[in-house]
Amino acid sequence: MIQKYPSTLLENAVSELSALPGVGRKTALRLALYLLKRDVDYAEKLSLAIHDLRTQVRYCEVCHNISDKAVCSICLNPARDHRLVCVVESIREVMAIENTGQFHGLYHVLGGVISPIDGIGPNDLEIDSLVNRVASGEIAEVILALSTTMEGDTTNYFIYKKLSAYPVKVSVIARGISIGDEIEYADEVTLGRSILNRTDFKDSLRF
Amino acid sequence: MIQKYPSTLLENAVSELSALPGVGRKTALRLALYLLKRDVDYAEKLSLAIHDLRTQVRYCEVCHNISDKAVCSICLNPARDHRLVCVVESIREVMAIENTGQFHGLYHVLGGVISPIDGIGPNDLEIDSLVNRVASGEIAEVILALSTTMEGDTTNYFIYKKLSAYPVKVSVIARGISIGDEIEYADEVTLGRSILNRTDFKDSLRF
Repeated sequence: MIQKYPSTLLENAVSELSALPGVGRKTALRLALYLLKRDVDYAEKLSLAIHDLRTQVRYCEVCHNISDKAVCSICLNPARDHRLVCVVESIREVMAIENTGQFHGLYHVLGGVISPIDGIGPNDLEIDSLVNRVASGEIAEVILALSTTMEGDTTNYFIYKKLSAYPVKVSVIARGISIGDEIEYADEVTLGRSILNRTDFKDSLRF
Repeated sequence: MIQKYPSTLLENAVSELSALPGVGRKTALRLALYLLKRDVDYAEKLSLAIHDLRTQVRYCEVCHNISDKAVCSICLNPARDHRLVCVVESIREVMAIENTGQFHGLYHVLGGVISPIDGIGPNDLEIDSLVNRVASGEIAEVILALSTTMEGDTTNYFIYKKLSAYPVKVSVIARGISIGDEIEYADEVTLGRSILNRTDFKDSLRF
């Protein structure tokens, strides 16, 4: 059913809000009416934050992570291990790994994974810049931390082949049973790999 | 856990977005990263739509519905029955009733219901302006279409008392079993009222 709006301003706001992921026209209307109920100040701040985010955003020249300056604070941090680079799909994974507090190297944000169905090839990703970083000779190990999907595996292999010409160690994050999972409910592929890739029990005592 | 953001622009956008109803910090981050992926044009349009909605919005001087002009298109429509006024809580109910296509009178948007717990008294609502509309003598019937909650019932009664001084019919929308509902699962109060307020079977054949 075509919804009739009593105001073109409202209709326009609902249209734009409903283009956001996970926001349908009903939710968009709820958000718009909430904005009308809140003080003008909040709507102004939200509007400005969205505008500034998109127009003033910068990406680190080294790792392509989102950044306030030309080079991000992680790449500039002398306390981090500059010989260790973790390759991830997006900013989201950088934040997730930073939250673990377990990684103290640098990152390289690809901007996605190779996915022919979505029309994303190697040239759409920051793979060449990764190869250049490795070619500079300052990187000892590249850790691949992409999704464990077919697209992620394809991208892992593509990068592995590209880097094979350089004296760099290429590793991949461990796949196995999630902490807190019950073996009974683990899928067969994960369970199978977790047996093949078993680690020394003494190493598991570190945490 | 306190999430660290790689950019203050991102952090700011996430903060403002997460103030929206039903949007937590995780969803706000997803929305912000989506904005970064989309073209600049979309973010600009969204930002402007939010700004314009809140700063340029107007309300109808007669019925207080949201409107592009001083008086809304419903109040100005000569094809509608100007002797019939439906009292609702908000714009949302106007849109819901308009969607039914069953009502051809005018509206009066109260802006809420009397709710002492939320600190909303009769003076915070558009009740006086409703009394003024009735006092003008042009209205034959006021239909109360508020929520069937204690607050809605209180507001209904308050308006009924206020209007008792005028020669106007005050009616309330029918409460009963929802179309498509099974009697077995209806709550007792609704079922009880639906028996007390039974209607002539011939009338039910109109639809």
